[in-house]
Amino acid sequence: MKVVVDAFGGDNAPLEIIKGAALAESELGVDIILTGDEAVINKCIEDNNITFKNLEIVHTTDVISMHDEPTSLLKAHKGSSMAEAFRILADSKADAFVSAGSTGAVVVGGTLIVKRIKGIKRPALGSMIPSPDSSYFLMDMGANAECRPEMLQQFGVMASVYLEKVEGRENPKIALLNIGTEDTKGGELQQEAYKLLENAPINFVGNVESREMPKGVVDGVVTDGFTGNIALKLIEGTTVTMFKMLKKVFYKNIITKLATLTLKNGIMGIKQKMDASEVGGAPLLGVAKPVIKAHGSSDAVAIKNAIRQAKIFTEKDVIGTISANIN
Amino acid sequence: MKVVVDAFGGDNAPLEIIKGAALAESELGVDIILTGDEAVINKCIEDNNITFKNLEIVHTTDVISMHDEPTSLLKAHKGSSMAEAFRILADSKADAFVSAGSTGAVVVGGTLIVKRIKGIKRPALGSMIPSPDSSYFLMDMGANAECRPEMLQQFGVMASVYLEKVEGRENPKIALLNIGTEDTKGGELQQEAYKLLENAPINFVGNVESREMPKGVVDGVVTDGFTGNIALKLIEGTTVTMFKMLKKVFYKNIITKLATLTLKNGIMGIKQKMDASEVGGAPLLGVAKPVIKAHGSSDAVAIKNAIRQAKIFTEKDVIGTISANIN
Repeated sequence: MKVVVDAFGGDNAPLEIIKGAALAESELGVDIILTGDEAVINKCIEDNNITFKNLEIVHTTDVISMHDEPTSLLKAHKGSSMAEAFRILADSKADAFVSAGSTGAVVVGGTLIVKRIKGIKRPALGSMIPSPDSSYFLMDMGANAECRPEMLQQFGVMASVYLEKVEGRENPKIALLNIGTEDTKGGELQQEAYKLLENAPINFVGNVESREMPKGVVDGVVTDGFTGNIALKLIEGTTVTMFKMLKKVFYKNIITKLATLTLKNGIMGIKQKMDASEVGGAPLLGVAKPVIKAHGSSDAVAIKNAIRQAKIFTEKDVIGTISANIN
Repeated sequence: MKVVVDAFGGDNAPLEIIKGAALAESELGVDIILTGDEAVINKCIEDNNITFKNLEIVHTTDVISMHDEPTSLLKAHKGSSMAEAFRILADSKADAFVSAGSTGAVVVGGTLIVKRIKGIKRPALGSMIPSPDSSYFLMDMGANAECRPEMLQQFGVMASVYLEKVEGRENPKIALLNIGTEDTKGGELQQEAYKLLENAPINFVGNVESREMPKGVVDGVVTDGFTGNIALKLIEGTTVTMFKMLKKVFYKNIITKLATLTLKNGIMGIKQKMDASEVGGAPLLGVAKPVIKAHGSSDAVAIKNAIRQAKIFTEKDVIGTISANIN
């Protein structure tokens, strides 16, 4: 299996991306294609004693940044490392795609270069969100700020397939994010989507309120991209804020500092668990080939995990199963 | 000043409501009207040695519950303690209203019994949300699941007046909750609301992302009621989940338990700070008289705080100022 990796996407590109790709090659037995400036990649490999058995580099000179208009991937930045990686995937020269670059550009490239699965209205981004005992899949995370009810229905089907195939959850519980549990709650979008999800070939368990969601009471939560993005970043923001407040308590004086030493491992465990990068990348579901968007701040291990995700995604034929369930 | 208090609204009604009203009478110097079953109220006062100097009770026998359809306040439950309290307010027999009962019913009663301020499209619920160094006002919290851009503009104006008058914040910073900071972010609702908020007579500082919001970077955050409700409950759910995980670390063994003792005050301080009931009730802004919805789980102190809020709200003429700024 071949995975094409955008070597110049992400905050820690190219070094951590290249290191992660090398780890994936040796640990997961996948072949890697890197897109990006060949000279820079080779120098990076040399300077850091990174070893590949069988690396292919496709040379590009341009990079699309977080600040560029996502659609510029198709024109002004069509020569970028990300655009090239998408073309390699679309031309079937690779089986799967991983990038830690601009989320918007990944959605544009997936939708317009790789193209949608037949019957899918709009691709969407999902992500596993950590919770105390397990984790849950939230979708859409922000690819579609405005959604129609049929889109949410399809998100439910895609989330269910992903959870079953990639996360190994049998008959995963899928819920609709809403402001109450009754089917009359929310706006027109939620009320209509509720009915459609009830009729989808999934284990739809009704509405979930955002108060319950962090407890991991369901396997998958479906929502429009605006609400999903707000939710994702709010969990992050609230967690960061809480840890900052705790830190003040822990480092207040010499006695609390000593007490904190005893608790350090446990607290670091929570921090690690709640750290989104630990649960891998975000699949762009609904496009015709496996596309994984790794977290922008991914280090080598996160990139390796995203490549593992891409591998399972491909091997378990998530796309074929989505296609069969949609049509 | 007279405050009418729904004695039978909330999880801890009527005892905590009555106790809170008595505290408010003695500490804040307001006159109290309680609505509810007179015999039960009098027995409660006697059994618990509660003292009022000057209590008026308006007898009702019915109660509207959290499970009743909010609009039933107008028909099936028009004889409820909450409906009666709203009529007392509407008839100017009291200056302000406080209830810890059904949020939906408070919105219905405020909008249809008390009625809107002239020019206001839709009343909305706001609430002060705790953050590490301060707190911020979030609005709409759930009165309007679906909003139009002009409604968000009015929420901005009302939030600004409330923050200035009741919270004493000079020239409060008002932001629009969105999935990015640029004015092109979000759906049509956010993009149009952005333009309207820029032209409102407030200190509009642009979009705020949900990752930044919990840090308390602005004074007021404006959003539609669906997103606001999701956000409010997600902060609650995330905080509760974090504390549960921490508890496991703290109570792991005898050593961690001893260490935790040292940190207990600090951690309880965070818990108390992040506990929504500590920042009082939610004003229903946009209606022609002061209406405060206290948290459903309010104890006596929370009710007293909600009555204090109602008092300041009335004294500072929030409604007159909103009216002047809208028209």
